[in-house]
Amino acid sequence: MQDFKQIVTEFEQRLQAIGLFPQAPGNLYEPCRYLLALGAKRVRPALCIMGNEVFGAVQEDAWHTAMAIELFHNFTLIHDDIMDKAPLRRGNPTIHAKYGLTAGILSGDVMCIQAYVQLAKVKNHLPELLQLFNTTAIEVCEGQQLDMDFEQRDDVSIDEYIHMIALKTSVLLACSLKMGAIIGGASEANANKLYEFGKNVGIAFQLQDDYLDAFGDTAKLGKQNGGDIRANKKTFLLLKAKELAGDNNQLDELMVAEEETKVQGVLSLYKDTGADELCRAAVEVYSDKAFKNLEEIDVPAERKEPLRKLASYLLQRDK
Amino acid sequence: MQDFKQIVTEFEQRLQAIGLFPQAPGNLYEPCRYLLALGAKRVRPALCIMGNEVFGAVQEDAWHTAMAIELFHNFTLIHDDIMDKAPLRRGNPTIHAKYGLTAGILSGDVMCIQAYVQLAKVKNHLPELLQLFNTTAIEVCEGQQLDMDFEQRDDVSIDEYIHMIALKTSVLLACSLKMGAIIGGASEANANKLYEFGKNVGIAFQLQDDYLDAFGDTAKLGKQNGGDIRANKKTFLLLKAKELAGDNNQLDELMVAEEETKVQGVLSLYKDTGADELCRAAVEVYSDKAFKNLEEIDVPAERKEPLRKLASYLLQRDK
Repeated sequence: MQDFKQIVTEFEQRLQAIGLFPQAPGNLYEPCRYLLALGAKRVRPALCIMGNEVFGAVQEDAWHTAMAIELFHNFTLIHDDIMDKAPLRRGNPTIHAKYGLTAGILSGDVMCIQAYVQLAKVKNHLPELLQLFNTTAIEVCEGQQLDMDFEQRDDVSIDEYIHMIALKTSVLLACSLKMGAIIGGASEANANKLYEFGKNVGIAFQLQDDYLDAFGDTAKLGKQNGGDIRANKKTFLLLKAKELAGDNNQLDELMVAEEETKVQGVLSLYKDTGADELCRAAVEVYSDKAFKNLEEIDVPAERKEPLRKLASYLLQRDK
Repeated sequence: MQDFKQIVTEFEQRLQAIGLFPQAPGNLYEPCRYLLALGAKRVRPALCIMGNEVFGAVQEDAWHTAMAIELFHNFTLIHDDIMDKAPLRRGNPTIHAKYGLTAGILSGDVMCIQAYVQLAKVKNHLPELLQLFNTTAIEVCEGQQLDMDFEQRDDVSIDEYIHMIALKTSVLLACSLKMGAIIGGASEANANKLYEFGKNVGIAFQLQDDYLDAFGDTAKLGKQNGGDIRANKKTFLLLKAKELAGDNNQLDELMVAEEETKVQGVLSLYKDTGADELCRAAVEVYSDKAFKNLEEIDVPAERKEPLRKLASYLLQRDK
């Protein structure tokens, strides 16, 4: 069985080889090529291949599916960056910042359709794979909408927040794994367990990300702590601290304070309220669920080992 | 066999019945419901059903496909309206004008994916239908890109213009017919003839539209002549007049004149250069091609009669 790095290397070679985007019209395809060349972790396509390999030899269909998923993911990044008015992606100008709004919209559209072009190449299980892909794609859009809705709301609950991050990020990870599992010939029960594993890993990873943004090792992060606080992002920590603070309006006062006062004050409040520990605990809850899902998949343990290792690495359980 | 109106009535009933868009998240789906309720001619879904009926009884698959095509078309309208900065669509505010840019982008995205959800419901010929749909969708994006590129260019040829309108509008009409034909069990040769028929009808219709905008009966049009001239749109007439005028720079001078002078002057120039008659002639060329394509389809003439009538109506040959 291949490890993550081997898979990503092969994926990059295939991405180069298939010539996804023709030269003309250049204004349409140049932004697509630009984004795909910026480099990325390729977690989703790797999960698809690994999901296949849990159940059998890697099929050509899995590579087509992996390509479809990565293209879909990049499509969402292009459009999300417009909606979020983000200037940078992977350390480089976003497509709309570099090429303009129109290029952002239309290059995103063509990348989404190109995802379906790749998916249409699969030889087996096409109806099932297409339905799962569609359902997931709709959920990702709904997640993005909820994320934007939440920016305007002051009464977002923790449950709503977790529902949102599940839709916006976790279901595509889960879908990647399950599509791979279907291609690999998994039983429905096993494929569904792998889906749940992916979904729970995704939620745990996002909650950990919230925690690390506030309290992570700044040297490792390569950035200051508190980026989410500076950006007024509604994270698990903020929502939980607000819930725990109750009628105490210290948080509201801090949010309008001068930036460094705000960051340091909010970080202290996360500790004082115990929101920090509750966030770590939530990471553990979803991580535990994920590893339990993986255990319950009815194949020899060694077949699941690459996924167990990857999840341990992502969820920092390998230390 | 059903006529156009019967098909559209049934299509509207099915559109209501399937409940395409759930209530929540409202900010995502309300714009989708708004646009679909504005009323439209539903030419593309009708073509799909009629394409099926040329070759056999209408299949449930054709209705799913018709729905997919109409949703895809509406998705392109939403995003094109953003790119074109259009305030109105079907006499009502466009989605981005009414709900904002973010709603325009994301509602368009979810409508595109919903098109694939409907398409995924087909029971037979899924791989073939999906591939044709994807190829066409890519072409439509390329057509939109060329249209925008042409706005910035002063050297667009007539051939380039016809290629652009074919991609931007005709291929989806052709695809609608051919998908219907495939579902109806057409031979490959017949399905391809029907595709060419649709493509040529589409080109003829667009060229006729260019002509009518300049010289049509204003009472019938419900608007003043010369809308394209006012909007500086590069149409067949403008490109042809420019080509015929050669070194004479009268056209360039008119384009920067006061609006009424410009409109009346350019209209006169279309007549003086003979661009008007050449436009009518081009409509005839593509219409003739279309009717010849239809004739060559190897089924009894009465099966083709509804399409012949519809094309005659659209191309004003019924008088």
